[in-house]
Amino acid sequence: MKFEVLHTSKKSNARVGRIYTPHGIIDTPNFVAVGTNGTIKALDNALVQEIGLQLMFCNTYHLMLQPGTDIVRQAGGLHNFINRQMPIITDSGGFQVFSLAYGSVADELKSRGKKKHEGMVLKTNEDGVLFRSYRDGAKVLLTPESSILAQKDLGADIIIPFDELPPYHICGDSLKLSLERTHRWEERSLKEHLKNPQNQSMYAVIHGGIDPDLRQQSCEFLTNLDFDGYAIGGSLGKNKQEMHTLLTHTLPRLPKDKPNHLLGIGDLASLEQCVPLGIDTFDSSYPTRAARHGLLLTKTGGFKISSKIHGNVFGPPVAGCTCPTCSRFSLAYLHHLFKAGELTAYTLATVHNLHFMVELMKDYREKILRDEI
Amino acid sequence: MKFEVLHTSKKSNARVGRIYTPHGIIDTPNFVAVGTNGTIKALDNALVQEIGLQLMFCNTYHLMLQPGTDIVRQAGGLHNFINRQMPIITDSGGFQVFSLAYGSVADELKSRGKKKHEGMVLKTNEDGVLFRSYRDGAKVLLTPESSILAQKDLGADIIIPFDELPPYHICGDSLKLSLERTHRWEERSLKEHLKNPQNQSMYAVIHGGIDPDLRQQSCEFLTNLDFDGYAIGGSLGKNKQEMHTLLTHTLPRLPKDKPNHLLGIGDLASLEQCVPLGIDTFDSSYPTRAARHGLLLTKTGGFKISSKIHGNVFGPPVAGCTCPTCSRFSLAYLHHLFKAGELTAYTLATVHNLHFMVELMKDYREKILRDEI
Repeated sequence: MKFEVLHTSKKSNARVGRIYTPHGIIDTPNFVAVGTNGTIKALDNALVQEIGLQLMFCNTYHLMLQPGTDIVRQAGGLHNFINRQMPIITDSGGFQVFSLAYGSVADELKSRGKKKHEGMVLKTNEDGVLFRSYRDGAKVLLTPESSILAQKDLGADIIIPFDELPPYHICGDSLKLSLERTHRWEERSLKEHLKNPQNQSMYAVIHGGIDPDLRQQSCEFLTNLDFDGYAIGGSLGKNKQEMHTLLTHTLPRLPKDKPNHLLGIGDLASLEQCVPLGIDTFDSSYPTRAARHGLLLTKTGGFKISSKIHGNVFGPPVAGCTCPTCSRFSLAYLHHLFKAGELTAYTLATVHNLHFMVELMKDYREKILRDEI
Repeated sequence: MKFEVLHTSKKSNARVGRIYTPHGIIDTPNFVAVGTNGTIKALDNALVQEIGLQLMFCNTYHLMLQPGTDIVRQAGGLHNFINRQMPIITDSGGFQVFSLAYGSVADELKSRGKKKHEGMVLKTNEDGVLFRSYRDGAKVLLTPESSILAQKDLGADIIIPFDELPPYHICGDSLKLSLERTHRWEERSLKEHLKNPQNQSMYAVIHGGIDPDLRQQSCEFLTNLDFDGYAIGGSLGKNKQEMHTLLTHTLPRLPKDKPNHLLGIGDLASLEQCVPLGIDTFDSSYPTRAARHGLLLTKTGGFKISSKIHGNVFGPPVAGCTCPTCSRFSLAYLHHLFKAGELTAYTLATVHNLHFMVELMKDYREKILRDEI
């Protein structure tokens, strides 16, 4: 992988760059759509490429359980298996295992959903984590080494070391112990990766929750190792203010000549907040999930397609939008398909939202080049 | 509409023809896919055209309740509304109203599902049928005149007169009374249609259930009126043998210089049985529904994609198939998408099954031209 910064804004830390991968270029800052099982939900991978989505995020945890990474390896790797010619990033599986056990930050804050997956994580120790497959109840052991081997089978352009995701509420010594273990796990992951680099790049995951000191320690420890880029993970706080504070503190501690990635964040407000801080890539299932729930993204946020007022609007869903949906179908038709519960509605809305994200990020890059943000 | 018979087989009554409509040619015999709400489920209409599906069947009953035919009229008709440039056929709404009330023949024979929609049909008299919308419980009156006006709003190339669908089990005098009413309703429909033909064609619907005399009467009555073609509707019997007997008896009573259509039949075995009898077009939701249930059609019938044996087959889903799915993705990938419950799986399987039907009908036409069937 090669990374070059083309321009840093005179107005902020926002920067425009290019990541060169074995499967082509990723212009930064950019948005990364989530295709958990090797497909963007409701979309054919050819269409995803046509829309111009340069990087796709697939989840090792899911692909490990179905179809199994050995199947993907036999197919010649994930690019071949899903027929994608452009770059792919995979995570380590750690986030999913632990988030299924603990629930999301929102679940935690609202004390909801805790019971659902209790018992999924059977044992966590220095070696790794033993959990039950959500598919068939089989016991699966995930370690730094097995996660990396799985990601070698998948063969994504960018891979991620195995980490522990501590629950949002832990702090003090517990968080520190978790961070130290994560550092050891990431180091083991890197070592396993470097045995057989396979032309893949590995981004470390900066942890430390919302504790500034621990975040600083994490940056120091991980930037001393030979990673190709840096992802920011773990708990990012309970609201946008906490996230902003945390990122403002963390980003200056990362090397400027390597790409960084913000894990799991991609709503429009967060992008607006984080692009000026110098984040290079963002992944989120927000735009695709929103589409399936009938929310069409626009420059002013978005609107619900199923709202009654759209039933007789025969112009495009979003005026001026050049996406394959807006250039061919009316808002009234899309509204109708949602009301009728047609699967085609999910496809058409997803196409729009992903195209919107691609254009939005292009706009951000142009504005940065003009020092406007 | 113009219809020409290009060739009749020396071996059977099978024939190859061409129907010329305002939106292009329909080669016959052909298969008509069902796009109830103005979309083939899980497919974008552009893709449906690319696959080469020449005629699409939309349901007036559903479109009347959502989005309402006035909306479609305001959009400039169904072709504009759904962005389809090729021919469309709509039914009268009668079949759906009555089949929702009575259930299907299979439901009836197995005494199942009768209660589900009881109370949907509130009143049937000479004027028409009063029923409750399945969407919001509103009372809707459907008459020959209102059905045709609805189909004028939709503006399909081929439309169908309003008819009564008698339950399978009725016979004797009840069936005769129903048939006579249907004839009066069809005549009223034709009269309403001819007030404003709008370049649309109307196919009569031959009724009479499984009673040969009534079928004969229906042919005699309806072929004396100025219809552009003839659909065969009503109960076609409880098995393929009954249907074969009925069609063998009915088809010779229809004018050879007009196209005919077999309503609601399109499984592979029925096509094989009915093409030699001289049926020109068939509509059925079977191939698209089968796709969503993971059944991929092949020349020998089909197979379940989710079967374990397909998990590691890295060749195309169906060897030799040139469809956009088989030419780009492996059976293992399609299997995986079904196992993972991905919506993309429904799209890819539907694309294959519709392409299969288009090719199958092309094969039939070529075989007829060579007098092989």
